[in-house]
Formats: sequence, C-alpha cells, structure tokens
Amino acid sequence: MSKVGFIGLGVMGFPMAGWLSKAGHNVTVFNRSTEKTKRWCKEFQGQTVSSLKELATDAEVVFVCVGDDPDVREVLLSPRGVLSAMNSGSVLVDHTTASAEIAREVAEVGGTRGISCLDAPVSGGQSGAKEGCLTVMVGGEIQAFERVVSLIDCYAQRVRLLGPSGCGQLAKMVNQIAIAGLVQGLAEALNFAQRAGLDPELVVEVISKGAAQSWQMENRWKTMVDKEFEFGFSVEWMRKDLRICLQEARGNGAELPVAALVDQFYADVIALGGRRWDTSSLIARLNRPNDH
Amino acid sequence: MSKVGFIGLGVMGFPMAGWLSKAGHNVTVFNRSTEKTKRWCKEFQGQTVSSLKELATDAEVVFVCVGDDPDVREVLLSPRGVLSAMNSGSVLVDHTTASAEIAREVAEVGGTRGISCLDAPVSGGQSGAKEGCLTVMVGGEIQAFERVVSLIDCYAQRVRLLGPSGCGQLAKMVNQIAIAGLVQGLAEALNFAQRAGLDPELVVEVISKGAAQSWQMENRWKTMVDKEFEFGFSVEWMRKDLRICLQEARGNGAELPVAALVDQFYADVIALGGRRWDTSSLIARLNRPNDH
Repeated sequence: MSKVGFIGLGVMGFPMAGWLSKAGHNVTVFNRSTEKTKRWCKEFQGQTVSSLKELATDAEVVFVCVGDDPDVREVLLSPRGVLSAMNSGSVLVDHTTASAEIAREVAEVGGTRGISCLDAPVSGGQSGAKEGCLTVMVGGEIQAFERVVSLIDCYAQRVRLLGPSGCGQLAKMVNQIAIAGLVQGLAEALNFAQRAGLDPELVVEVISKGAAQSWQMENRWKTMVDKEFEFGFSVEWMRKDLRICLQEARGNGAELPVAALVDQFYADVIALGGRRWDTSSLIARLNRPNDH
Repeated sequence: MSKVGFIGLGVMGFPMAGWLSKAGHNVTVFNRSTEKTKRWCKEFQGQTVSSLKELATDAEVVFVCVGDDPDVREVLLSPRGVLSAMNSGSVLVDHTTASAEIAREVAEVGGTRGISCLDAPVSGGQSGAKEGCLTVMVGGEIQAFERVVSLIDCYAQRVRLLGPSGCGQLAKMVNQIAIAGLVQGLAEALNFAQRAGLDPELVVEVISKGAAQSWQMENRWKTMVDKEFEFGFSVEWMRKDLRICLQEARGNGAELPVAALVDQFYADVIALGGRRWDTSSLIARLNRPNDH
C-alpha cells in the first residue's frame, strides 16, 4: 500500500481519490475550498493537511486534478507548490487537462529535483470517475509510468503511455478534436431529421449500425432530440480544451477548421445560457426558430 | 418466386440484382451500357431486354439503382420510362440516392397509374452490396413495403420503413450529414496527432473505446494515416449526396454549417486528384506541407 497525496477534489478528483482510499492506500487530500475536503474525509478513509507542502513532503506519489494551466502553475510550480517540497524519487501524476507545454515545463522542473512527472489527462467524464472506469492518457518516462500504473488502475479501466512528457495531453487533444466534429455532425443530422419530419428514433435505429455510427449517436441522440443538456461534460470545459487544441495547432501547423468553428458555436451555446450544459448541446443553437 | 426487373448494374446494382437471382427469382436486367448487362447475364441466371418498357411490362416488381435525379427522371418519368409501362398493381423500388422531391413526384405519378412506388436508398457501400448486407431506408406505403421486403432481404440485413414517400431519401440524408462532420473531425484529429509526433495507432487504441469512438475511426484510421484512398465510397458521390442534403435544407430550414463546409473541402480533395477517392480522403487536404 502506498502513501499518496491527492490535490483537487472536483467532480473528477473527488471520486478518483475515493477509489485510491477504497483500495487501501493511505490518502491525504487537499482542495482549495476546505468544504469539499471535509466532505471527502467524511465519506472516505483518509486525512487532510493545511498546506500543499505538508502533503508533498509526506507522499510517495502526488496526484493532481485541477482546472487549467494557471491552476497547474499555482499548485505545482509556484513557491507554495508541491514540486518544491516533494522528495527526490517520488512521482507526480497530473490528471489535469492542460497544455502540452506546461506538462513539459513541469517535467523539466521536477527532473531537476529528482521527481518524475507524468501528464495524465483522463476521459470518461464524471460517470467514468464515479464508476472507476476512466481512460488515462499518459506522457512521461516508462519507469515512472510503471511505478504508478497500479495506483491509476484503482479508477481507470485503460491506462496507456503515449510517449514522453506532453504526449498524454496531446492524445487528449486528439480525442477532443475528433469529438468536436463528430458532435456537430450529429447535431446537424438530428436537427435536419426533426425539421424534415422524420421520427428520430426510427432514423437512429436504422443508421446507427453503419458508417455513421458513433458512441455519441448511441449515447446522446435521445437527450439531443429531447433537448436535455443538464448533465455530462460541460461546454465551458470543452471550450477550455478546444482553446488548448487550437493553441497547440498554431505551433505544430495542424489545420483545425471545424474544431475552430465548433469552438465558436459553443460560444453561441453559452449565449443561450448553456455554459454548464453537456457538450451535445451544440444542437441547441440549431433549434432556433426561423422563417425559412 | 417473383418476376422482377432490375435497372442499373453499377457497382451497387450489379451485385444486388445478382442476389435476387441467386435467391431463385426470375430477374430481367437493364443497363444503359450493354457491356455490363452481358457480364451480368454471364455471371448470374437471368435475362435482359432491349428496352425499359419491355422490362416494365413483364415485372411484378421493378428495382432501380441509378445515379442521380436526372437519371431517375429519365428511367422512370420520361416517355420511354418504366412508369408508363408497368402494370397496375405492380411495385417500383428505387434504390437511387436522390432528392426527396423526386421521390414524391415518382410516387404521385405511379399512384395515378396504380403503381406503388418506394424510395429506398441504401447504405453499406460496395462491400455491403457484394456481401448482401446493405441497410435500406424506405419511404412509401406500408402495403407496398410489406410486399417487397422479402425481396430486398436478399441483399440487405436491415430494411426499415421510415414514413411516407421521400422519407427513405431524408433518412439517407441524415446519415450523410452525420458522416460529413464525423469524418472531418476524425481527419483533423488524426492529422493533428501526426503533426504532434504521436503514434496514431497508440492514440486510436486508447481513444477508440470512449466518447470519440466511431465506425469511421475503427475502420478508416489506418488508411487515413497511410493516405490510402483508392477504395470505398467516392468523393464524387458524396458531393452529390451533400448537394441533395443542402438543397433539402434550404426547404426545411435546417442549418448545415459543417456539412456545407465539408462539401467545399471535398472540392479541395477533387482538386488534389481525389474525385474517385474514398470519403475518408478529407485528411488529404490537411496533409499539405506548410511553414507554420
């Protein structure tokens, strides 16, 4: 059993840290708002500390799951961050979806202090975290990966090393770019079906076994048609991810015309009040009445 | 066993008519170029005739699988077309992917002559036709549908009635709209992965079980990455289908921003020499070298 620290008890981190505790590991948690820390300590076996440094000093492995690059910078790289206090030989696993650039910076700073750093963004959403069946895309060195993979297995059903530092983030970007075009295509298709007077259920049944098939079609067609968006992976977080993708593409020369357009469409969805709606709410902006 | 006629022995119609013959039906075929007719009669049990009218007079059910609206008009509605010669009480099954408008016009003309007309576009491509496992989306009246469904079963694994005349075409449009966004998203994602220096196989393995999963990802990622496009459903035919979708959307008020954009991207692919390439060749226009 390992002595681990977990920073960030949001909708993802809260259950992930819980799975580590349920597996018998000695878990110390930390969260910006202490209300969540208290709730976590009530629900699971484990303890909290009053500072990041305290958590860092005591852990063999530190997990992080925060929001965005600035949070990663604050929690890991700032003077009060964990990298300045973790022991040489320990491992840092960052589950935040952030830029590949900051992943490389973190790994470099960690390296100078003998700390192995892995960027390890996840997919599978809130339900995947709750059910312990996330997919984890890892960038970093294989030795560090092998030391922590059994810990990550506590809440993941698929953990893969994709390459050196940053490659976990890049793989997550590939995932989000594919989803952007896919969901918009599905939204246009379902909206067209409705306007054409077709029964969406019949149409989906007949097309969902062929070349148009997708996880999104199977799992989101009904809520899209019914305009139910109060669940899932939010538009706000998707826009953050697309911003990171578009930023990275400026560097590597990839053209992302549809991902860039879909990012703009999400701005429309936010204008409709959909900041917290599921990613599938792209159909909401197509549902506007018009005169044709 | 039924006496049927089959018009149009292209890459789809040729094997479809073959399946009807192999099932023991009495099949008469007709094709604009007689070379294919001869080849068909050599390969399968059946006969040909010298005119559409001859074929029409003699058949309980006439199947059609031609290219586009003008072909449908010529073969069905023109003075030399089959609708003017088919017997009252017979059924016409049009497998062409065409507009919903012409499907309704055909049904109306047929109706005045006691001929039941079904629009029945297919999906599943050349391989689906060869293997007899197409999906068929049907519009028309249920009585006519029930009379021919066992015939269509000769080459289909899924046959569904979607609603009145035109609804088969509309369902096929929904399919193509969903595919347009999906394939472009996948193309952007895979191109990004390559430019980011990731191993596409590793990335696809890790993301293809989650929210980005699709038939296209599973069946096309490898050929897209390897730039192999000499197979499958051609860009030229996809552009025809998207033209029909965009035309229909002008009428029903559906917005298709990404389908319209992808249609333009296919024009780029054609400019690269890809008229006959598979639909997945959208990635070819992203593979252009650039200076970033």
